[in-house]
Amino acid sequence: MEKLLARWERLCASSRVLWFMDINLRGVAQVMFQNNPLSGALFLIAIGWGSYAAGAPHILIAGLLAVVIATLTAQWLRVDEVALRAGLYGYNGILVGLALATFLAPGALLWVYVVLGAAVSVVAMLGVTNAVKPWGSALTFPFVLITWLLLLATYGFSGLAGTALPSGGNVVTAFQPYDASPLKVVDLARGVLQSISQVFLKESGVAALLLLVGLAVNSLAAAAFALAGAILAVLTAHLFGAESTLITGGLLGFSPILTAIALGTVFYRPSLRVVAYAALGTLFTVVAQAALNAALMPIAIPALTAPFVLVSWMFLLPRQCFETPTADATKPGAT
Amino acid sequence: MEKLLARWERLCASSRVLWFMDINLRGVAQVMFQNNPLSGALFLIAIGWGSYAAGAPHILIAGLLAVVIATLTAQWLRVDEVALRAGLYGYNGILVGLALATFLAPGALLWVYVVLGAAVSVVAMLGVTNAVKPWGSALTFPFVLITWLLLLATYGFSGLAGTALPSGGNVVTAFQPYDASPLKVVDLARGVLQSISQVFLKESGVAALLLLVGLAVNSLAAAAFALAGAILAVLTAHLFGAESTLITGGLLGFSPILTAIALGTVFYRPSLRVVAYAALGTLFTVVAQAALNAALMPIAIPALTAPFVLVSWMFLLPRQCFETPTADATKPGAT
Amino acid sequence: MEKLLARWERLCASSRVLWFMDINLRGVAQVMFQNNPLSGALFLIAIGWGSYAAGAPHILIAGLLAVVIATLTAQWLRVDEVALRAGLYGYNGILVGLALATFLAPGALLWVYVVLGAAVSVVAMLGVTNAVKPWGSALTFPFVLITWLLLLATYGFSGLAGTALPSGGNVVTAFQPYDASPLKVVDLARGVLQSISQVFLKESGVAALLLLVGLAVNSLAAAAFALAGAILAVLTAHLFGAESTLITGGLLGFSPILTAIALGTVFYRPSLRVVAYAALGTLFTVVAQAALNAALMPIAIPALTAPFVLVSWMFLLPRQCFETPTADATKPGAT
Repeated sequence: MEKLLARWERLCASSRVLWFMDINLRGVAQVMFQNNPLSGALFLIAIGWGSYAAGAPHILIAGLLAVVIATLTAQWLRVDEVALRAGLYGYNGILVGLALATFLAPGALLWVYVVLGAAVSVVAMLGVTNAVKPWGSALTFPFVLITWLLLLATYGFSGLAGTALPSGGNVVTAFQPYDASPLKVVDLARGVLQSISQVFLKESGVAALLLLVGLAVNSLAAAAFALAGAILAVLTAHLFGAESTLITGGLLGFSPILTAIALGTVFYRPSLRVVAYAALGTLFTVVAQAALNAALMPIAIPALTAPFVLVSWMFLLPRQCFETPTADATKPGAT
Repeated sequence: MEKLLARWERLCASSRVLWFMDINLRGVAQVMFQNNPLSGALFLIAIGWGSYAAGAPHILIAGLLAVVIATLTAQWLRVDEVALRAGLYGYNGILVGLALATFLAPGALLWVYVVLGAAVSVVAMLGVTNAVKPWGSALTFPFVLITWLLLLATYGFSGLAGTALPSGGNVVTAFQPYDASPLKVVDLARGVLQSISQVFLKESGVAALLLLVGLAVNSLAAAAFALAGAILAVLTAHLFGAESTLITGGLLGFSPILTAIALGTVFYRPSLRVVAYAALGTLFTVVAQAALNAALMPIAIPALTAPFVLVSWMFLLPRQCFETPTADATKPGAT
Repeated sequence: MEKLLARWERLCASSRVLWFMDINLRGVAQVMFQNNPLSGALFLIAIGWGSYAAGAPHILIAGLLAVVIATLTAQWLRVDEVALRAGLYGYNGILVGLALATFLAPGALLWVYVVLGAAVSVVAMLGVTNAVKPWGSALTFPFVLITWLLLLATYGFSGLAGTALPSGGNVVTAFQPYDASPLKVVDLARGVLQSISQVFLKESGVAALLLLVGLAVNSLAAAAFALAGAILAVLTAHLFGAESTLITGGLLGFSPILTAIALGTVFYRPSLRVVAYAALGTLFTVVAQAALNAALMPIAIPALTAPFVLVSWMFLLPRQCFETPTADATKPGAT
């Protein structure tokens, strides 16, 4: 693996096209904190499979377009070369593209929106990074912020229509206990896999397995924490009595997975204490997910990965309580 | 008093159990900025009385459990020893426990929630303290944040049900002037007392008097500012035409009281100018309370002490305009 | 012009009254980033004309009262003399006064509200400035924050009633495409002018022209960016299919104009790259305006200039990507 990557880097150094491709692949991989083009390629295959299986191949194209636009914008803004090469200006872009194509109806203006959102995601990345520099990294907050604004604005633009947006017209009301349909182990297993694929807004077991492989080729620990986080999230949601369809669809698990990877692999020397701390954060991300789902109901937008950002910021801030952390939460990958 | 406390501290130094009790009592006292175990004990009696009078003694137990869990979590996270001893990792915990038991129906999951919330409140305290370090202290924001998330999440969890949550299904509409029922002086007096007891989510005149005594044993100034703040808040709310039941129930006064204590006793050398400034802040907290009550209506959660946090942060930030402030907003007490 | 201003400054130095007037005029001018008393005077005439034309002359009086109260409060708080003289403690005040008088019904309590809001706007200005000092300036966020709180609170106060507040009782629902009424060029031209006058909450072409003159006497670049920003905003809103009445009423253009001035004249050495960057920010402010309009619907308050603040903060943060910026975003004026 090391050798393969070394050869790839030599190739990239000799070709401008490969060099550009490499940056974009790393951008895709950074959605799950990996700085590895092979992980990115596997993630892209997973996205492609999930899009195709859902009968919406244009979602993959929107994601690809967005990550390329984001990288070009970053180059135009002359960002820091090291961060650019690590893919740190691409991961918000691809998420914006995937989310817009998932939640909005296809059409000419959708592509305008994808380009605009991807370009602005880089500005937001630079801005948020500067704002939180004293105590953390941007995580996926630029993606969340830009996508929220773009989706909300469609309620005022007749040229863009939502297809998969949460139904509006609701305000928060007391939970109606669902008809008894106790989840079986097989449902929980599906929930675990879908939670992993929902990190890229997909609902596909195959995509989930591809994502796990993509994680494992770069970091076995990341793959393990992703899987463990998904299991913990599904069990927690089930314990608290969350809606079955949300659990099996993976909609309460994708944020906790990211929290698990961030908290579990960001601390320098893994220990039982760090694992317990990461478990607490993962568990609380399930609560935050249910909370933000409710809070955003009146304005009819999805929570995206905001629960992960909120809880991870909260749990990464008290770093002084742990052994020396690694240098940067978004650069834990090998290179 | 000084002698009594000195003897108590010697006792605590000799006994691990008393030492732990002392920290938890100070945690309770820090809800109103006092670093004094006797204040904490009197506050606990007030909470107990209020809970018993309301026929809900389990609320006291939830508060006690929460402060103990918070202290244990803080020890596990190896927080700063001085801050721990001053009770700074306990006051958010007890408030989380009291709020959860007040707003949610009793049941096994409630206790899971109390333990989870109390533990996470310590992480939030560490995190918020770090985030606002350049310009302030955390105040009760960790309590507000964690409780909001936990309460909101119940709308997605069938295992937890709200009993005293604001009714959902509303969006903000123009105020319907209430039937003329002009408040009498006795009503205003009740509003003043209930405002004080509502700091601990209680509606009890006896509890209010106990709280005032608890303040006075540590700081006469704090007791005076609390009382004056409550009077100013009730009069302001009445002047603007707020709903009578909110005024007499103390629901527009508990945040302004905390603002009055924070602004009035946090500045080093009290002066007429500081008093006027604290009065302006107290008065504006009433506006912020009414504003947040309206803003949170569509998502059906209570404002808690968010108005106090918002206005106090705003009024504590321009400290350069005043004489050297005391070192830390949350440590003004004697020891 | 230079000579005229020099003579005026000598006059101000000799007279306490003129000196005070000068500060307040600069405060008005700073709403559009100008530090020039003549700009302020022209802006005031524009406000007066707009208020008179709308049959609501008391709005001008509320604005004047508010800026004077704000300046007096700033003096009482002993703020930095240089910033005071530049009008930086006045612009939020006048905006609070204009907004309250625009959205609320006249009455005795309205004037209490104006005085309270103007005074607290200075505290908020000090506070926000301190909080964002590491990376930016306060822009009009103090105005937005204080006005939002005061307007929201009226839903809980029977003594204050809204007249022009957005209708409550709505939550966000899918956009209903309006009946085909394609905008003509003349409508777009009206939209451009109204966008400019809406910076001061006015709907008047004459006021818009006066404002442009007021900008031009101090900075031709500012006038040019304001006009170009308005045109870009109106075209963008039209492209995305925004509601015609919002476009022609200028309600989607006033925030983008401020973004255009801030981004276009805040960077040290204008270049094609800066112009493109400012255009991207201006365009995205239209999206943010539509988004915040939707997001605030359930709580029935107007977005004010929040879209400008949000996008400008985001676009001003990555300043390291551009040539040395000017010292301070709010002090780009001459003198």
